[in-house]
Amino acid sequence: MKKQFKTPEAGDKIKVILDGRTEQGTLLDSHDRGVLLLKLENGYNIGLKKEDISNIKIIEKKKEKKESEELKLSGKKPIIDFYLTGGTISSKLDPETGGVKWLIEDKELFAMYPGIFEVADIRVKTPFSKASENMFGKDWIKLAKLVGKSLNNPQVKGVIISHGTDFLHYTSSALSFMLGKLNKPVVLTYSQRSSDRGSSDAQLNLICSAHMALGDIAEVMLVGHASTNDNYCYALRGTKVRKMHTSRRDTFRPINCKPIAKIWQDGKIEMIDNNVNKRGKKKIDVDAVFDDRVALLKFYPGQNPNVLDFYRKKRYRGLVIEMSGLGHVLSEGKNNWVPVLKKLIEKGMFVYAVPQTIYGRLDPFVYSPGRKLNKIGVVYLKDILPETGLVKLGWVLGHPNWRGSVATARKMLENISGEFNPHLGNEFLV
Amino acid sequence: MKKQFKTPEAGDKIKVILDGRTEQGTLLDSHDRGVLLLKLENGYNIGLKKEDISNIKIIEKKKEKKESEELKLSGKKPIIDFYLTGGTISSKLDPETGGVKWLIEDKELFAMYPGIFEVADIRVKTPFSKASENMFGKDWIKLAKLVGKSLNNPQVKGVIISHGTDFLHYTSSALSFMLGKLNKPVVLTYSQRSSDRGSSDAQLNLICSAHMALGDIAEVMLVGHASTNDNYCYALRGTKVRKMHTSRRDTFRPINCKPIAKIWQDGKIEMIDNNVNKRGKKKIDVDAVFDDRVALLKFYPGQNPNVLDFYRKKRYRGLVIEMSGLGHVLSEGKNNWVPVLKKLIEKGMFVYAVPQTIYGRLDPFVYSPGRKLNKIGVVYLKDILPETGLVKLGWVLGHPNWRGSVATARKMLENISGEFNPHLGNEFLV
Repeated sequence: MKKQFKTPEAGDKIKVILDGRTEQGTLLDSHDRGVLLLKLENGYNIGLKKEDISNIKIIEKKKEKKESEELKLSGKKPIIDFYLTGGTISSKLDPETGGVKWLIEDKELFAMYPGIFEVADIRVKTPFSKASENMFGKDWIKLAKLVGKSLNNPQVKGVIISHGTDFLHYTSSALSFMLGKLNKPVVLTYSQRSSDRGSSDAQLNLICSAHMALGDIAEVMLVGHASTNDNYCYALRGTKVRKMHTSRRDTFRPINCKPIAKIWQDGKIEMIDNNVNKRGKKKIDVDAVFDDRVALLKFYPGQNPNVLDFYRKKRYRGLVIEMSGLGHVLSEGKNNWVPVLKKLIEKGMFVYAVPQTIYGRLDPFVYSPGRKLNKIGVVYLKDILPETGLVKLGWVLGHPNWRGSVATARKMLENISGEFNPHLGNEFLV
Repeated sequence: MKKQFKTPEAGDKIKVILDGRTEQGTLLDSHDRGVLLLKLENGYNIGLKKEDISNIKIIEKKKEKKESEELKLSGKKPIIDFYLTGGTISSKLDPETGGVKWLIEDKELFAMYPGIFEVADIRVKTPFSKASENMFGKDWIKLAKLVGKSLNNPQVKGVIISHGTDFLHYTSSALSFMLGKLNKPVVLTYSQRSSDRGSSDAQLNLICSAHMALGDIAEVMLVGHASTNDNYCYALRGTKVRKMHTSRRDTFRPINCKPIAKIWQDGKIEMIDNNVNKRGKKKIDVDAVFDDRVALLKFYPGQNPNVLDFYRKKRYRGLVIEMSGLGHVLSEGKNNWVPVLKKLIEKGMFVYAVPQTIYGRLDPFVYSPGRKLNKIGVVYLKDILPETGLVKLGWVLGHPNWRGSVATARKMLENISGEFNPHLGNEFLV
């Protein structure tokens, strides 16, 4: 026989009586009709089988407020401008597909994770809602301009951007170049599990992001789980970070450098890399430009170089090639890339080499293929990440006053936002 | 005044008298005219400044033998067939460029690293000499056929292949599929430093490879440094290994699985993964086919899907796409990949998704872009490496009797050589 209770609504604070125990918390939408999903006061969610429940008491009905009221500022705490841009952190389980549904409202997200309001007054902005694989130049430009306004607003202490994980490292690179030398922290964060799941990493990531946004380090940083444990986060440099696992909560890894800092939920920050820019009072100049006629190409053995002609015919201006080892491509036989690249460069294409191994630094001078490529004008981008290389090239080519292969190469080789690690030894392969 | 000694030749065993000490060893070619390079009996090389040398005594002149004599078999030790295919392990410093010169002769390599002869009779074969980025289908087929003959020769105990590092993981994948279920060990090895350098990793890698080739594990394995220390090697599964650093000696990492074993110089082997195939007596059937009309494509945000038309026009049969996150590409707006991929698949192209994050497993069912791609016929290759995915597709399409999208997908999803880890949890991100 099906049991009937007085039906609580999602958002209500309730007490559930089960055989031998009670659980108290806020009711969440559940994708399973046989299960009642409860957000406990410690922040975790639990699922309770309806058949095990003997009674439910509604302690407090969900408050129905207008949006302006709901996220009202206390006027007593420092202000963080919070940009919600979509992704898993803005999503919840979808009972129709059993998958994840995009785009919960900001109210829902913050109702689930109210902890961030305890340390700051949060002003929520929603410039667009997109999965990160759908973002590119114009989205990065829009976001950079908005963030720039927040940074130049004396009332604002710092900025947080929540974002899809897939290509978060592209956006963090783009903002690093476009925002330049910062006056305040810019923190990007995410979750790998949708926000309504008990195992969601949103809570820790959000609160640690707030601590970094209120702190002294004025860099574009990605803040998220440092391990699979729910104990602390890393702050990682925006230009030297990559998604390295399809599903782990600590998917973002520092590449060819150390993390900037460790952050705990209680606000403790332990610096790891002290070579950082500090908070200042100067207004910033946003340099939000991007030429999307750039492409990233991963080289594989046997690859026919005729793919290069495709990019020439489509009038791309710059190519970033993930080369093998210290920076090699096919350099003999019928599929020799060297003469094809030479012609391409002579016709005005900018060609940059980046490491396919991800870790380590390129060196064109050890082997003859590298020396040949260097000679025909391929520029080697040292220990840069391929993803950062592509974003940087689009940004550099967006500047009409940096035209020409010499000016372009000079800018590409300049360490603008920590994209190169001049102190890189052999120690960073995690 | 320039000192003059009785001039020894490279290969001579000599004693060098310096101020207050003597050094004894085999003279090597030196790229620096002011330095005498000596291979000591402990295997290390040292450079001695000629100006510090007071005398040189030739203890034993280099033996001038014919090749057949030089690598003569003792007849008392187990036989390893050793295929030299090029790469850094077959190279030495080049005084002209300051870089590395390809292709030392086998005699030179084994004169520098004689240790391997103490455990086995080595039969050296040189099918070709290439940097690994210059190898592809026909080289893998040639190598597989030769190795197959060695494996089916009752006199041979095991096989070693020395190889360039850049794309060694492609060759190890190709041999894994082409050789099938093995009767004897097939070991691929390498060095990251040219063999004439004191810091070369060749010595440890070669001796550990010999121990594995004589052992009981009948798998295609890559054997090389497990860390930057010179203490032991890992044996890694041929289909689940990737070069992850431009220059570290432990550049090869197991991806989404554990190493098979640890090997020490003295022959001690410690198993880590016991789920391996053991040595047997049955002859093997080599299945050396490859259709090179396959391509690997790394997706990046904003990428125009018109690059897909290039592959269709060039009559490729199969595409392996490195997708973001759990398996996504651009799925909205003017650069929406979904309809373009749908048309491509309808026209007969086989499209496979692999993880761009490298670590972790794809899952098309969590987010709507994945569900859409799955519906139009993109096949998700779980936790496979992108590189292994490309090699496997070329191999599968090389079989005329596996034609058609259903038969192709079935083979691509079958765990043929450990390319999928069905037990993969979250634990393997190193």
